[in-house]
Amino acid sequence: MMSTPGFSFDVTARDGHARTALLQTPHGPVETPTFMPVGTIGTVKGLTMEEVGTTDAGIVLGNTYHLWLRPGAEVVQALGGLHGFSRWPRAMLTDSGGFQVFSLAKLRTMDDDGVTFRSHIDGALKRLTPEESVRVQSLLGSDIAMVLDECPPGDADRAAIERAMERTTKWARRCLDAPRGPGQALFGIVQGGIHEDLRLRHLESIAAMPFDGVALGGLSVGEPVPDMHRVLRAVAHQMPDDRPRYLMGVGTPRDLLVGALAGVDMFDCVLPTRNARNGQCLTWRGRVNIKQARHRLDDGPIDPRCEGQCCNGAGGRYTRGYLRHLFLAGEILAARVMSLHNVYFLGSLMRGMRAAIREGRAAAYVDDTLRGIAEGDEVGPPSNG
Amino acid sequence: MMSTPGFSFDVTARDGHARTALLQTPHGPVETPTFMPVGTIGTVKGLTMEEVGTTDAGIVLGNTYHLWLRPGAEVVQALGGLHGFSRWPRAMLTDSGGFQVFSLAKLRTMDDDGVTFRSHIDGALKRLTPEESVRVQSLLGSDIAMVLDECPPGDADRAAIERAMERTTKWARRCLDAPRGPGQALFGIVQGGIHEDLRLRHLESIAAMPFDGVALGGLSVGEPVPDMHRVLRAVAHQMPDDRPRYLMGVGTPRDLLVGALAGVDMFDCVLPTRNARNGQCLTWRGRVNIKQARHRLDDGPIDPRCEGQCCNGAGGRYTRGYLRHLFLAGEILAARVMSLHNVYFLGSLMRGMRAAIREGRAAAYVDDTLRGIAEGDEVGPPSNG
Repeated sequence: MMSTPGFSFDVTARDGHARTALLQTPHGPVETPTFMPVGTIGTVKGLTMEEVGTTDAGIVLGNTYHLWLRPGAEVVQALGGLHGFSRWPRAMLTDSGGFQVFSLAKLRTMDDDGVTFRSHIDGALKRLTPEESVRVQSLLGSDIAMVLDECPPGDADRAAIERAMERTTKWARRCLDAPRGPGQALFGIVQGGIHEDLRLRHLESIAAMPFDGVALGGLSVGEPVPDMHRVLRAVAHQMPDDRPRYLMGVGTPRDLLVGALAGVDMFDCVLPTRNARNGQCLTWRGRVNIKQARHRLDDGPIDPRCEGQCCNGAGGRYTRGYLRHLFLAGEILAARVMSLHNVYFLGSLMRGMRAAIREGRAAAYVDDTLRGIAEGDEVGPPSNG
Repeated sequence: MMSTPGFSFDVTARDGHARTALLQTPHGPVETPTFMPVGTIGTVKGLTMEEVGTTDAGIVLGNTYHLWLRPGAEVVQALGGLHGFSRWPRAMLTDSGGFQVFSLAKLRTMDDDGVTFRSHIDGALKRLTPEESVRVQSLLGSDIAMVLDECPPGDADRAAIERAMERTTKWARRCLDAPRGPGQALFGIVQGGIHEDLRLRHLESIAAMPFDGVALGGLSVGEPVPDMHRVLRAVAHQMPDDRPRYLMGVGTPRDLLVGALAGVDMFDCVLPTRNARNGQCLTWRGRVNIKQARHRLDDGPIDPRCEGQCCNGAGGRYTRGYLRHLFLAGEILAARVMSLHNVYFLGSLMRGMRAAIREGRAAAYVDDTLRGIAEGDEVGPPSNG
């Protein structure tokens, strides 16, 4: 169970390993399985929080690394904490900052106590330890904080992964012992690469500690997708049943569905907003690249099946032809509309999954949806064809 | 009077040379004096048309040059005309494209029949004539089209200005004779630089033609601001009383107020959105440069007096500290919020001017507002000081 006051987690329906649940937080309830849009430095890129609130999102993720470096955790705290700062009234989760230190920072040196690095923004020397991560997250004031972990790359060898597991376990204990903000939950992180035995061994260590939830880290970091799916199917349902299960940094529509079917409750990824800024829209028939010439005179919406305001709003849909024009001209509105569409789409996908679980047809929902989406280019004639 | 069916213009109040009026168009009424946000290529940069609709704006300007080159007038027509294409249901005005040919295009050669140039986007050879401008504007389907004129630079000598006036008069007749879209009004343009006698002479020629409205072109093109204000005070009230008077490409809060007091009804400028993208916000106490370090911990709104959704919305104000952070990080949301604020601010300024005219205190409103705005940096302590 979740031991931090103000939190609770109640499974409301089950279908195979998949489940729906209600996660209560000090900033409101979240229905799971859920996709958390990423609000990197206090903004889900391109969107207002009012817009995020029109999607399925009940919880947003903030990046500790980014906010710590700019504008600084003390500034965020002075301006109302992450909730007040970013104007998001509902639940918020922060990561530990570790993943970005490994992927963005320069001149990284790691030891058993923590990691020293230079900021990718101004080169300033910084040091991140388990205690510092928890301290920064407490200043940010998220509802859910994450432990600092060591996340080995997707091609790391077994020995390196085992070393990362050991360090992650030690750091997890230190994070538990560090003073947190009042009413701030803490999730542990399981490493182990794509090795099922390592995953289960590390899960045993992490699940034994009084974390409010347990996450799978170190997936979707370059390993083959089938390997990730295999690990999810083997491990997710063995994670504690009475606490939220969170798959970090995932992902694509396919990965969300496979993860939820395997028993995962929470996901996050920059994919919907990043893809939108690159001209890619998610649809129930696959990805649409808005740049393509075939959209030039297309007066249909991004996705005729989508019920979001971009495709089906009161003010009239945004046509593919118009969005293509805006995108090619570099207009802000293109990124805005397509970001909102993509976040809305992933929310719809999860809402559909929750309904399917409640109705005992989760596997069929995943199969049918994946057949339509095909994880590639849109299938079929143009939207107005 | 306005001779095109579907249009009417009725003065509703007067105060000195200033007046309020109701301009009826096929896409709804516009209260004047009014500021028209510029929707360059079918988008008011950074904003949705729903957002533009929450400001005072009842009419938006589209740039013929930009739309003609990209995506092309035929594409705009196929996607519903400029109204359907851009999702703006209310009145729309298009310029002739001439001003952008002079300011943006390369390898310009001009003759009595028109102007040949290369596109600044792809170098394509194009030719703009009075007839072609009207044809393109009819494809775009704006409510109000503008004649093609020759706009000499602010430092042009008297002889060059007189030649531009003659050519502009000839082109004005040709635009009147060219076939327009059904229910599309046409405005003439008065040149004459900062020479009052030339302005009045050219005004006489243009006002004698059956245009639906008369515009002042060739101002705010580099001449000293006091000269522009002198010309406005001498000329605006001599423009036809029974038709809209439009001051093109203006401008700053000060220029809008001086123009409206002199009898101008319509204005347009990219200033609110362009300044926003550069970090400048318009306020009742002067310009705010959001980059400044003094805003770092400021939890006040851009303008405590502003009633717009950015400063005073239901979802909570955007603080200066948050906007500064977003702007320094290059986040889209900074440009969005500050663009909406600036367009809202200019709308409020005009709404205030209309109220002042109705109440016979137009001159006092202008004086008081200009004292506060000071056309410079914000005056007084920080917003939360």
